[in-house]
Amino acid sequence: CILSAYIMNETYSLLFKRLESSCRLFFSHDPVKIMRARGQYLYDENGMQYLDCISNVQHVGHCHPSITQAAAAQMDLLYSNTRFLHDNIVLYANRLAATLPKKLCVFYFVNSGSEANDLALRLARQYTRHQDVIVLDYAYHGHLTSLIDISPYKFRKLEGQKEGVHVAPLPDTYHGIYREDHLDPGQAYADTVKSLIEEAHKKGRKISSFFAESLPSVGGQIIFPTGYCKRVAESVHEAGGVYVADEIQTGFGRVGSHFWAFQLQGEDFCPDIVTMGKPMGNGHPIACVATTEEIADAFTANGVEYFNTFGGNPVSCAIGLAVLDVIEKEDLRGNAVRVGGHLKQLLLQLQTKHPLVGDVRGVGLFIGMELVKDRVSRKPATEEAAHLVRRLKEERIVISTDGPWDSVIKFKPPMCFSIEDAERVSTCIDQILGGWLTLKNTSSLQHSFPFDEIYI
Amino acid sequence: CILSAYIMNETYSLLFKRLESSCRLFFSHDPVKIMRARGQYLYDENGMQYLDCISNVQHVGHCHPSITQAAAAQMDLLYSNTRFLHDNIVLYANRLAATLPKKLCVFYFVNSGSEANDLALRLARQYTRHQDVIVLDYAYHGHLTSLIDISPYKFRKLEGQKEGVHVAPLPDTYHGIYREDHLDPGQAYADTVKSLIEEAHKKGRKISSFFAESLPSVGGQIIFPTGYCKRVAESVHEAGGVYVADEIQTGFGRVGSHFWAFQLQGEDFCPDIVTMGKPMGNGHPIACVATTEEIADAFTANGVEYFNTFGGNPVSCAIGLAVLDVIEKEDLRGNAVRVGGHLKQLLLQLQTKHPLVGDVRGVGLFIGMELVKDRVSRKPATEEAAHLVRRLKEERIVISTDGPWDSVIKFKPPMCFSIEDAERVSTCIDQILGGWLTLKNTSSLQHSFPFDEIYI
Repeated sequence: CILSAYIMNETYSLLFKRLESSCRLFFSHDPVKIMRARGQYLYDENGMQYLDCISNVQHVGHCHPSITQAAAAQMDLLYSNTRFLHDNIVLYANRLAATLPKKLCVFYFVNSGSEANDLALRLARQYTRHQDVIVLDYAYHGHLTSLIDISPYKFRKLEGQKEGVHVAPLPDTYHGIYREDHLDPGQAYADTVKSLIEEAHKKGRKISSFFAESLPSVGGQIIFPTGYCKRVAESVHEAGGVYVADEIQTGFGRVGSHFWAFQLQGEDFCPDIVTMGKPMGNGHPIACVATTEEIADAFTANGVEYFNTFGGNPVSCAIGLAVLDVIEKEDLRGNAVRVGGHLKQLLLQLQTKHPLVGDVRGVGLFIGMELVKDRVSRKPATEEAAHLVRRLKEERIVISTDGPWDSVIKFKPPMCFSIEDAERVSTCIDQILGGWLTLKNTSSLQHSFPFDEIYI
Repeated sequence: CILSAYIMNETYSLLFKRLESSCRLFFSHDPVKIMRARGQYLYDENGMQYLDCISNVQHVGHCHPSITQAAAAQMDLLYSNTRFLHDNIVLYANRLAATLPKKLCVFYFVNSGSEANDLALRLARQYTRHQDVIVLDYAYHGHLTSLIDISPYKFRKLEGQKEGVHVAPLPDTYHGIYREDHLDPGQAYADTVKSLIEEAHKKGRKISSFFAESLPSVGGQIIFPTGYCKRVAESVHEAGGVYVADEIQTGFGRVGSHFWAFQLQGEDFCPDIVTMGKPMGNGHPIACVATTEEIADAFTANGVEYFNTFGGNPVSCAIGLAVLDVIEKEDLRGNAVRVGGHLKQLLLQLQTKHPLVGDVRGVGLFIGMELVKDRVSRKPATEEAAHLVRRLKEERIVISTDGPWDSVIKFKPPMCFSIEDAERVSTCIDQILGGWLTLKNTSSLQHSFPFDEIYI
């Protein structure tokens, strides 16, 4: 039931029409509402518990008391803007700086990942004096005018590809042009970016930036092949552009072994701009852009102020600091390594049992399990993925899909997800997929799905 | 001292460099920091109290306990996103709808005024299928790429005016092309917009929207002449465009007599899109776009979802609801009428005494007092305004300037500003301006200003 909460476009705007109509629409589909949440668990109006496998924003767990306490204490003292001096912003910038390579030492605080990515674009363009952007196929970088232009996931359905935007192939070694059997897919995919730059140059265009999530999410929980980022950065720098790492979904220790997902690519790779957001405030609207002194200096050289009314206010920074404290105190990165590793092993075991499971990939608590119609063609099993999500919902497990064909079951739970949670979800998936095998033998799989009732 | 907190551009980015350097820069200029605030008062680290005349974001008063309580209670229950159903968003939309004309019945919740204005642009462009925008001179609509393009206040210092942007004269009857002696300045200024549209049409361009603050703020606390908006809306509609009222600084009862500043233009005027922000969450990052069903339907007709991670979450909406409750319970609109009216009268009395005071204008607690070198040329008294701000700071009154020449002393205090506060600030201004007359007679006014110490 809860998954009817994944409101589709049409109902989404209706929701905001005056109460009478929105209520009618709301509850006619589904009367279940989530009333409260704690840790990795959601509770509906009857107190029924659901396991949450997807709320990456509520990074240290839903409604963590330390975060609420820090917010309330600071709200009672001062909730002004950054035109008044305050220690919190400096303390917070310093804490963030400690997680990043030294050269990323200037921080701009904003209110959302979209605001962060828009500012990153402005920084890149002002520093390089170039306009064009290279993005990965299927990428989504935010809901703002400037970001829809660089989000193939969106612009393909809207106004189309703008002249200054160049789309590089997604380095997906399961579905892409170079696969797991390639000797050096990192080099091969990086070469596609290099070629794109050369083509752009032939047309007289100039590259401001390569803009990519450090682990493409909407693209299908993709893990970059070894060496990819470093080689892309080399080509982009050679073209006078900068490397922007969008860590909005992937930062703050989700990958476990490192604080930032770009760090998986090794110490010899460092982006020029890093954007962060979703998990940063555990639900509170806060986001940030980290960059180098050179880029920040170029941005401010014209004497035009960047001011953000709410960005970096004492409450947002107090919350940000409290989130960092909990990540450390509760060893949530260690937990991501342990629980994520165990979950991935369990899913890999399912892969050996169930032909539907084509691929299992991920690091820490960022995991994707891709369903395929068959393992040779790798044809995405979109309907099966939707049905699995729906069946898991009946088992009170909240999960969803991603990827170009919505065939990837994605896991990005609150970081307090436990070994028991991992075993519960994998056991449920095992049973559901096992049941399908029986179903498949007795009747048409297609026929058994009441699709008109699925609201994903 | 506190006003060194109005950090200029260069120091703003330095601030975010690692602690060592940012601290050095910070406290070398000025060791005073604001540690807490309550109502209309700010307190520094020594407990010294300052009267706050400018924090319009902290609308119902700094750190109002009702707001903190509402936030903490909801943070303890649920701080999820709008992909889960929740009552708060529906309750809040309904409460906002009650303040607006009936046709504005669809609400999109976002995190900042900038996000709201960007979405308004997207709505206008998608609905009209036109691209061009008419804006008022000196306008500022936000820090995003798309908004700098339509903000003359910014783009004049940056990349310049883009082709699809048309700048109409600011309907300023004190400095503008039609003044207080004109028989119908509302019509005359509206005609300038009409002419702009005709010129654009001659070039084959099409107008998506007229985009204006309902009371231009950065433009100098301007009050539109009677009939202006209605006539502009007629021309814009005729051209197939929509009227966007930016109420980010002016909404939520600041003008006292009405909930929205556009309502000052009469009941026969209604914008097609209204954006709101700053005061909405009393400091918390929340903003909103209200529009008509027709525009919302056109926006969603292509089946592309608008999703905003933090926008409309249960905590933001709980805070928004609490702000509305306080506005009503404490009759803050009535207070704006009473105190704002009294303050304006006091400032008008100063105008009769001090030649420097060229104009006093405003409604409710949105007031501007413009300083001029002399009343015939109306030459802006920029340095005198900066000095007045600095002197008031010494009297522990926090105020600032606005307008194209920073010659307008602006009042937009928390809405709990009292009669006593109004009398205190006007008495201080009276004494400071009185002292200057003496100064002027004995030595050069210019000479008496240590400008290099002013950080505004």
